[in-house]
Amino acid sequence: MAIKTLGAKAAATLDQELMSTCAFSIDQLMELAGLSVSQAVYRVHPLNKGRRILVACGPGNNGGDGLVAARHLFYYGYNPSIFYPKRSKNELYQRLAKQLEDLDVPFVDDFQSAIASTDHVVDAIFGFSFSGEVREPFPAVIQALQETKLPVTSVDAPSSWDIENGPPSSGLGSSFMPTALVSLTAPKPLVRHFNGRHFIGGRFVSPSMAKKYGFEVPEYQGVDQVVEVATSGEKL
Amino acid sequence: MAIKTLGAKAAATLDQELMSTCAFSIDQLMELAGLSVSQAVYRVHPLNKGRRILVACGPGNNGGDGLVAARHLFYYGYNPSIFYPKRSKNELYQRLAKQLEDLDVPFVDDFQSAIASTDHVVDAIFGFSFSGEVREPFPAVIQALQETKLPVTSVDAPSSWDIENGPPSSGLGSSFMPTALVSLTAPKPLVRHFNGRHFIGGRFVSPSMAKKYGFEVPEYQGVDQVVEVATSGEKL
Repeated sequence: MAIKTLGAKAAATLDQELMSTCAFSIDQLMELAGLSVSQAVYRVHPLNKGRRILVACGPGNNGGDGLVAARHLFYYGYNPSIFYPKRSKNELYQRLAKQLEDLDVPFVDDFQSAIASTDHVVDAIFGFSFSGEVREPFPAVIQALQETKLPVTSVDAPSSWDIENGPPSSGLGSSFMPTALVSLTAPKPLVRHFNGRHFIGGRFVSPSMAKKYGFEVPEYQGVDQVVEVATSGEKL
Repeated sequence: MAIKTLGAKAAATLDQELMSTCAFSIDQLMELAGLSVSQAVYRVHPLNKGRRILVACGPGNNGGDGLVAARHLFYYGYNPSIFYPKRSKNELYQRLAKQLEDLDVPFVDDFQSAIASTDHVVDAIFGFSFSGEVREPFPAVIQALQETKLPVTSVDAPSSWDIENGPPSSGLGSSFMPTALVSLTAPKPLVRHFNGRHFIGGRFVSPSMAKKYGFEVPEYQGVDQVVEVATSGEKL
């Protein structure tokens, strides 16, 4: 069975439909998406592997998911730190950042020194709306993610990868292969180029919406907000 | 160790502070509170004990927590149905109800016949802001909850109980003892009169806020959003 994926345009349309027809608020969806990411990190990188988690957040929704995930990771017992160089003025992101500041979670300015003193990196830089060029200050970050030997968990997409076509054919990001990928709502076409542990999260898509968009709601277990699947789509 | 509790006024102040100084939105808090409730129900009443869960929702935030819990219970594989006779015009509650309608979760009008064909009841009628009289149409509902042999899980307070003093000394609600109670953020003083399984949920209170309000963040396990405690406060 080939995995069913959701292209960049369809993912954007589904997102809009969840927040209009389906009556979800972005606060709700981001909370559940970030919670899924935190549960995947907990599986890939249990507490006894080292508690320091560096969460790299981009300026948009992917970064917001990272901020939520970092908060839940704090509550699980990790010591997250946040690299968030392009802070959005959007009120929601400002609130998510404040929630972390109230937990004394540090915001770091220098990614190079931060990655030298962490145990795991969450890549919440770019998501399904990414296309084109990696803008400053993120090229050096992608470069570091590509070179590090640390485990990296990417949110929805390995940052710098094209949503449809996967890694760039050469240059920055072309050899970036994260340890784990958390596909939110449904895998994107880039998953065909991914060779790590693959999770699906976002347990809020109704069976009828999944059907409309041509994918299947994966078989989550118990109260889990995330499920590990083979990149071919079967549950592991 | 006597359990540390949060009185009705303090609970209201904490709630306000979470949504002002602490920068949470009510959507976020309600999502996490309802998620906690759903996880407690999953423990008290695993799927093999019968999948039908009747969620009785009051007009306020307690009812909103119930709506969120019902949605998560649907995703776990239960068949929830909702009794929600006093629908709020508040936009958030309307959205939470729509999210259930999109899952074809039935809204029932007749509590007596609904309770005759369910396996478990969630009491999300009144929470920490309840005081005084049980208003129509809820007296008959409390009466039914008091008489049923079905397991009942109450959200934050057994409905009709005084938040400080517990069950009414006589009449309606005086012999209502739910099977399980999910205290949100911290137990309320009424817990001293409660003899069932006691859970604490709402894994979003910072250590500094808990300290300020004179209670302790309980020791949640792993990624759990709920923890079972003895009514004396120790973790089980």
